[in-house]
Amino acid sequence: MSSFWGQYLHLSLFGESHGDGIGAVLDNLPPGQLIDTDEVKAFMRRRAPGQTPWSTARKESDLPQILSGLYRDHTTGTPLSAVIRNQDTHSQDYSNLELVPRPGHADLTGSVRYRGANDPRGGGHFSGRITAPLCFAGAVCKQILARQGIEITGHVKEIAGIQDREIDLARPPVAELRTVAGKAFPVLDDARGQEMIDAVEAARMAQDSVGGIIELVFWGLPAGIGDPMFGGLEPRLASFLYAIPAVKALTFGSGFDAMRRRGSENNDSPQFLGEGDTLHIRNKTNHGGGIDGGISNGMPVILQVGIKPTSSVSLPQDSIDLSTGENTRLVVKGRHDPCIVPRALPVCEAGAAIVLLDSLLTSGLFDFDKTGRDSE
Amino acid sequence: MSSFWGQYLHLSLFGESHGDGIGAVLDNLPPGQLIDTDEVKAFMRRRAPGQTPWSTARKESDLPQILSGLYRDHTTGTPLSAVIRNQDTHSQDYSNLELVPRPGHADLTGSVRYRGANDPRGGGHFSGRITAPLCFAGAVCKQILARQGIEITGHVKEIAGIQDREIDLARPPVAELRTVAGKAFPVLDDARGQEMIDAVEAARMAQDSVGGIIELVFWGLPAGIGDPMFGGLEPRLASFLYAIPAVKALTFGSGFDAMRRRGSENNDSPQFLGEGDTLHIRNKTNHGGGIDGGISNGMPVILQVGIKPTSSVSLPQDSIDLSTGENTRLVVKGRHDPCIVPRALPVCEAGAAIVLLDSLLTSGLFDFDKTGRDSE
Amino acid sequence: MSSFWGQYLHLSLFGESHGDGIGAVLDNLPPGQLIDTDEVKAFMRRRAPGQTPWSTARKESDLPQILSGLYRDHTTGTPLSAVIRNQDTHSQDYSNLELVPRPGHADLTGSVRYRGANDPRGGGHFSGRITAPLCFAGAVCKQILARQGIEITGHVKEIAGIQDREIDLARPPVAELRTVAGKAFPVLDDARGQEMIDAVEAARMAQDSVGGIIELVFWGLPAGIGDPMFGGLEPRLASFLYAIPAVKALTFGSGFDAMRRRGSENNDSPQFLGEGDTLHIRNKTNHGGGIDGGISNGMPVILQVGIKPTSSVSLPQDSIDLSTGENTRLVVKGRHDPCIVPRALPVCEAGAAIVLLDSLLTSGLFDFDKTGRDSE
Amino acid sequence: MSSFWGQYLHLSLFGESHGDGIGAVLDNLPPGQLIDTDEVKAFMRRRAPGQTPWSTARKESDLPQILSGLYRDHTTGTPLSAVIRNQDTHSQDYSNLELVPRPGHADLTGSVRYRGANDPRGGGHFSGRITAPLCFAGAVCKQILARQGIEITGHVKEIAGIQDREIDLARPPVAELRTVAGKAFPVLDDARGQEMIDAVEAARMAQDSVGGIIELVFWGLPAGIGDPMFGGLEPRLASFLYAIPAVKALTFGSGFDAMRRRGSENNDSPQFLGEGDTLHIRNKTNHGGGIDGGISNGMPVILQVGIKPTSSVSLPQDSIDLSTGENTRLVVKGRHDPCIVPRALPVCEAGAAIVLLDSLLTSGLFDFDKTGRDSE
Repeated sequence: MSSFWGQYLHLSLFGESHGDGIGAVLDNLPPGQLIDTDEVKAFMRRRAPGQTPWSTARKESDLPQILSGLYRDHTTGTPLSAVIRNQDTHSQDYSNLELVPRPGHADLTGSVRYRGANDPRGGGHFSGRITAPLCFAGAVCKQILARQGIEITGHVKEIAGIQDREIDLARPPVAELRTVAGKAFPVLDDARGQEMIDAVEAARMAQDSVGGIIELVFWGLPAGIGDPMFGGLEPRLASFLYAIPAVKALTFGSGFDAMRRRGSENNDSPQFLGEGDTLHIRNKTNHGGGIDGGISNGMPVILQVGIKPTSSVSLPQDSIDLSTGENTRLVVKGRHDPCIVPRALPVCEAGAAIVLLDSLLTSGLFDFDKTGRDSE
Repeated sequence: MSSFWGQYLHLSLFGESHGDGIGAVLDNLPPGQLIDTDEVKAFMRRRAPGQTPWSTARKESDLPQILSGLYRDHTTGTPLSAVIRNQDTHSQDYSNLELVPRPGHADLTGSVRYRGANDPRGGGHFSGRITAPLCFAGAVCKQILARQGIEITGHVKEIAGIQDREIDLARPPVAELRTVAGKAFPVLDDARGQEMIDAVEAARMAQDSVGGIIELVFWGLPAGIGDPMFGGLEPRLASFLYAIPAVKALTFGSGFDAMRRRGSENNDSPQFLGEGDTLHIRNKTNHGGGIDGGISNGMPVILQVGIKPTSSVSLPQDSIDLSTGENTRLVVKGRHDPCIVPRALPVCEAGAAIVLLDSLLTSGLFDFDKTGRDSE
Repeated sequence: MSSFWGQYLHLSLFGESHGDGIGAVLDNLPPGQLIDTDEVKAFMRRRAPGQTPWSTARKESDLPQILSGLYRDHTTGTPLSAVIRNQDTHSQDYSNLELVPRPGHADLTGSVRYRGANDPRGGGHFSGRITAPLCFAGAVCKQILARQGIEITGHVKEIAGIQDREIDLARPPVAELRTVAGKAFPVLDDARGQEMIDAVEAARMAQDSVGGIIELVFWGLPAGIGDPMFGGLEPRLASFLYAIPAVKALTFGSGFDAMRRRGSENNDSPQFLGEGDTLHIRNKTNHGGGIDGGISNGMPVILQVGIKPTSSVSLPQDSIDLSTGENTRLVVKGRHDPCIVPRALPVCEAGAAIVLLDSLLTSGLFDFDKTGRDSE
Repeated sequence: MSSFWGQYLHLSLFGESHGDGIGAVLDNLPPGQLIDTDEVKAFMRRRAPGQTPWSTARKESDLPQILSGLYRDHTTGTPLSAVIRNQDTHSQDYSNLELVPRPGHADLTGSVRYRGANDPRGGGHFSGRITAPLCFAGAVCKQILARQGIEITGHVKEIAGIQDREIDLARPPVAELRTVAGKAFPVLDDARGQEMIDAVEAARMAQDSVGGIIELVFWGLPAGIGDPMFGGLEPRLASFLYAIPAVKALTFGSGFDAMRRRGSENNDSPQFLGEGDTLHIRNKTNHGGGIDGGISNGMPVILQVGIKPTSSVSLPQDSIDLSTGENTRLVVKGRHDPCIVPRALPVCEAGAAIVLLDSLLTSGLFDFDKTGRDSE
C-alpha cells in the first residue's frame, strides 16, 4: 500500500506539490493498445487548475511527459511512466505551515507519521496535485476500457446541498450522462449547475469553501467481474476512491436509502427480457448498484463519492503553534479552490478506470485482440 | 485480493456454507502474545446464529479448532490457523437455487464468475458464515491491540430507520460504549433498542427483513498511524469492511453531513490543552472522524457502516428459472435472519481490529514487549 | 511474504510439526477443474515419510482432508483448503532442543526471530512436514497444468557426489523422465540409483547424512510465459524453490558451466524447422534452460536445485546450552532421513507446478475451457 | 510482480533502453534519513558504461535527477523518485533486430510475450540499462543500512574460469573486501584481476564475450532477520537477484560443495565465545552462508551469483528472419561489453541492499532514530 495500488495492473504515484516533479508508473498494461495522447491531455484538462473562476489561480500546464511504455503510439506492455514538472510554485506561501498546521489537512498528521521529515510545502505528497498523474493513468485505462465496451460517466450530484437531477438507478440517462464531461459545469441539469456555481462563488467571497457529492455510472461491464470478499468490486473501488484526498464517504447503488427499505423492496429481481437467454437478463430495479456479492451483475454500476469542503480557507482559523506551544490563529495563504468537487469528478473517473481495468484483467475476460491498431 | 487480505499481517479466509469446514489463517502476528481463548469464544458468540429471536434458527456451536500458531496459549508468530466444522446444514433447502437465483444474492453473479462451478449450497463461499472465522481472527487481534492501548467499540446506530442516541464525535461516551458489547441488544439507548427489536419482529412476521447502520469508535490509536494515498486508514478500512457481505455504504466522521458544511465549519482545529506539548493536542471538533490525510490524528476514529436488509426473505419474489428460460416466482426456504445488523456489529469490529493491527505493525510503533506474559 | 505466496494464484501454508494439524489454502484456482483426489494422494505418497529404508521411521498417513473449494470433484474457484492431522508425534524427543539448538537448523534463528515464542517441537513451522500440504497444492496444480499441455518431470541428478546420467539440455529424454516418478528410486540410471542408495545407507550406518541435487524439466510451456525483471520465470521459481527447507543452490540450464563458456558458444540460436512458421522455432542448444529475459522460449525449461545434507544427524555435535551459557555436545534424537533428496523431488515438482500455474494465469494464455469435465 | 518488487519497501522500475528516460520509484523508505547524493553518484559510476576498456563505448552520464522524496537532503518517507534521461542512443544499430532476434536475448521472447508491441530498440525494457535506476535505489538503501551497522561488500570471484582468491566463509577478510569497490578492477587478488582483464580483452579481440561469478558478503546483519518459507532471506534475495539480466545461477554459503559433504561436516555449530551471552555466539563454520531456516544467524551472509557471458557478440551467429521465415546469419551491431561481470557487481550489491532494508524494516528491528541528521 502507501502510494502504490493494484492486484495485476500496478500503479505507483510519486511527487510532492512543490518538488521538482510528480508522476505515475503503470505496469502490466495490456500490450499493443493504441493511446491517443491528445485525448489523454483533454481528459487531464478537466482536472487542471486555473481554468475556471471556482478553481485555484495556480497555473500549471500539467502536461505529462511520457518517458516509457509507449512506442509508436501503442503501449509496449512494459511500465508506462509519465512525469509532470512543477512550475508555478509559490513555496513561500507555505512557510508558516511547518509550525502552524492547517486544520483539516495532513500538515500535523503527516509530520507525526514522518517524524517531521516530510516535505511540508503545499502539503507535499498529500497535495491534491498528485491526482494529476493519477488522471494521466486513468485516462490511458479509459481508452483501453472503451475498446472492451466499458464506459465511465459521472456528474456532480450535489454541491453545498444543491442537488442535480436524480437519476433512475435502473435506467440511468446514458445519452445525457455522456454530455456531462464536455460541459463547463459537469451536471445533468444546467440550472441546478448555475445554482451550484453561485454557491461556490458565495463561499469564495466569504473566504470559505463548500463540498459535495459525485456520482459515477459505469456502462458495459459484463456480469461476472469481481471476486468474493476482499476482491469484490466494492472493496476494490473503495480501496482506490478513498485514497483520493477529501473523500470521506462512499456508497453504492441507493446507498443509505437501502438501509431503510425492507428486503422485499430492496432486492433487485432478475428478469428475462423475453429471449430466454442469460445474455438478456435485466434486473427490475438497481438498488444494489449493479453489484451482488462483490461481482457485477450486468446492470449499470453506480456509486456516490462524498467530497468534503476544501480544508484550505482564507478565513482565520484556530490552530496551534508548534514552536511556541501556544494556541494561535492561522490565516492560510496560497491559492485554493473554494470547491474541488468539479475537478474531483475526473479524478474519481480516473480511479474507477484503473480499478475496472485491473478487475477485468484478473477476470480472464479481457480481450487482448481489441487494440485499436489499424491492422485489427 | 479475493479471500486474502493484508499488507504485513495477512489473512486468508476459506470455506463454503455447506462444505466440510470453514476457517482462517492469520500470518505474521507478533510472537509471544498471550491469547485468552475463552475471550475469543465469547467474542465469537456475539456473531453466532441461533441465539436470539431475530437471528436464524440454524444452530452452530461455531467454535474454532486452532490447528497451529498457538503454543502454550501464546502466539508463535508463525501462521495461526483455525477451522470450524459445518454441522447443522440443510442443503436440500437450497436445491432450487442453482436454477432460480435469489434476488440480492450472489447466486447468479457467482455462477457467472465461476462458470457454474461454484458451490451453490447456502450461498457457498459468499455466505455470511465465512464471517465466523473472520471473527476468530479479529478476536485475536483485538486482544493484541488492547495491550497497545487500542480499543474498538461500536453500536447499532440505526435499524429500520429507528436511530440510537447520537454520539458527540469529539467526545464519544466511552464508558457507555464499552457496555454495548455485553447487552442483549447492542445499542446505547435501550428504549430505542426495544423499538428496533419490535421493528425486526414485525419484519419477521411479515416474512420480510430490515437493514440498518453500525457505528464504530476506535480509542487510543496514536497519531501518525496510516500512510498517504492507498495506505490511508480510510482506504485500508474500506478495503476490508466492504468485503463483509451486505455492506453497501461506508462513511467517516460526520459522513455526508460534512459535504453540506462550509470548510470553516467542517475543519477540525487542533488545540493545545494547556501543557504546551504535542502529546496534549486535541481537536475542538471531530468531523473528520480522527483521520486527516489518511493518518490518525489522535482523536477517536469514528465510522459508519450501512448494512442492507437481509436479501433472503420468505415472501415470494420475482426471479428467473435458468432451466426453462422463463421468469418465475421464488420462495426462499432455509433459515434466515430478519435483520443481520446486530450480528454484523462484531464482524465489523473484527474487521477493524485486523486492519488496525496491520496498520500499527507497518507503522513501526507496535511495542513487541507488551505480550501479556507473566514475565513481562 | 512469510508463509504465503503468489501474484494471482495465492497459497497460504500453515502448521507446526507437532501441533494439531498442518494445511494449505489455495485461492484463485480456475473454476470447474476436475481433480482426481486419488491421483493427488498418489503424488503425496512420493513425499510421505516411513516408506523406504532411507526415510524417517515416522509414520504419517499424511492424507489431506479437503474442507472447501472442491464440489462434486471440481474446483469451485473459491479457496481450496486441506488439513492434515499430525498423528505420530514424539514430542519428548525434542525436549532438549529449546535449550541446545541443533546445528544447521532454525532452532536458534527461529527462537531469536520469534523472541522465544515459536513452537520448538520438531522444528515447529520450520519443519519439512509443512511440505506435505505444499505437495497437496502442487498436485492439484499439476493436474490443471496437464490439461494445458504442461508437464513437470524431474530426477535425482546427484547424491553424495554420485551422478545420474546427464541429460541433453536441448533434447531431454522425455519418455525416460516420465518413468522416474514411478520408480522406487527416482533416477534415470538405476545402477547409479543403487550406488546412491548404498551411499545413503552408508551414511545412515555412520549416523550421518548426505545431500544432493535435483533436476527438473518442464515440458509444453508455450513461449511468452513470464515477465521482465521481478516477474521473470527465474525470480518467480527461485522465490518459491528457495522456500523449501534445505535448498541452498539453484541454477538454470547449464548453470555455472555457462559462466565458463564464451558468449558465442553459450547463446542458444533459434532456428526454423523448415516450416517457416514461428510455431516451429527451436533453439539449436538450450544452455539458457528455456528462458530468455525471464520469459519462456518454447524449449524445455530446465533447472537444478541443491539440497544440503540433512541437518539432523545422530552423531554427537558441538552446540551451546542456552540455559547454562556453556558450550556442549548435542545428540539429536528423533527420527530423521539420512537423505531427503528423493523425498524433496516431488516437493520441488509441486512448487514448480504452483509457480507455473500462477505464471500461466497471469499471462492471459490459460484456456479456461479445458476443465476435464465430461461435458467438454 | 513484473517491474515492481517489495513487501514493505516498494520499488518500481521503468524505462526502455532507447526511450526518453528510465527511472525508479522507491516507496516506504524510513523518513528523515540523510542521503549523500555525491556518494550515490559515486556508487552509480561503478556501474556506468564507457569508463573502462572492457565496457561498452556508449557514454551515458547516467546521473539521476531526483524528482521527489528528498527534501533538504533527507528522505521525506513519501516516494523517492529519480529519472535518468537517455542520451547517447544509436537506435539505427538495432533496426534489424525486430526481424532477426539476437540469440540469448529477450528479442524473441519479449516479442511473443508482448504480442509484438514491445519497444525492440536496444532490448527495450529488457536492457541492462534498467539497472542504472536500480543502482540509484540501491545506493540510497546502502547509506541507510550503513547507519544500522549493515554493510555490503563483494568481489568478482571468477571470470572466464580464472578465480579470485578464495575467502574463508567463517572469517571473510573484511578489510580487504572493503577496498574492492575502490579498485580499478574489483577483485581481492590484483594479479588474478589482471589475468581476468586479459581474458576479457582476448574475448573482445575475438568479437566474443565471457561470463563469471560475483560473490557478495553482508556484514552486521543481526540474527533473526528473515521469515520462514517464502519470507526467508534466500527466497527474498533470489527473487531480486534473479531479476538482474544475465543472472542464471545463485548459491548460498558453500553452494554445491555442501551437497557433497556429510551432514556432520556441513552443519555449522554455534559456540559461545567465552562470555556466556547469546550476543557472543559464533558458528565454528559458515557453510550455510549465515542463514538457517531462511533467517540470519549473525554470521556474515555470503552468496554467489553466476553471470552468463554477454549475449551480444559481434561474431556472426545463427538466427532466424521472421520476415522471410528463413534461417539466417546475424551480425549484432551496437556497442556491447565483452564482459559485464565487473559492472554487474554494484548492481548485485544494490539489489541486495534493497532486499536487506526491506527485510530489516519488516523485522521490527530497524532503528528509526539513526538518521544521520546533525541533531542526532
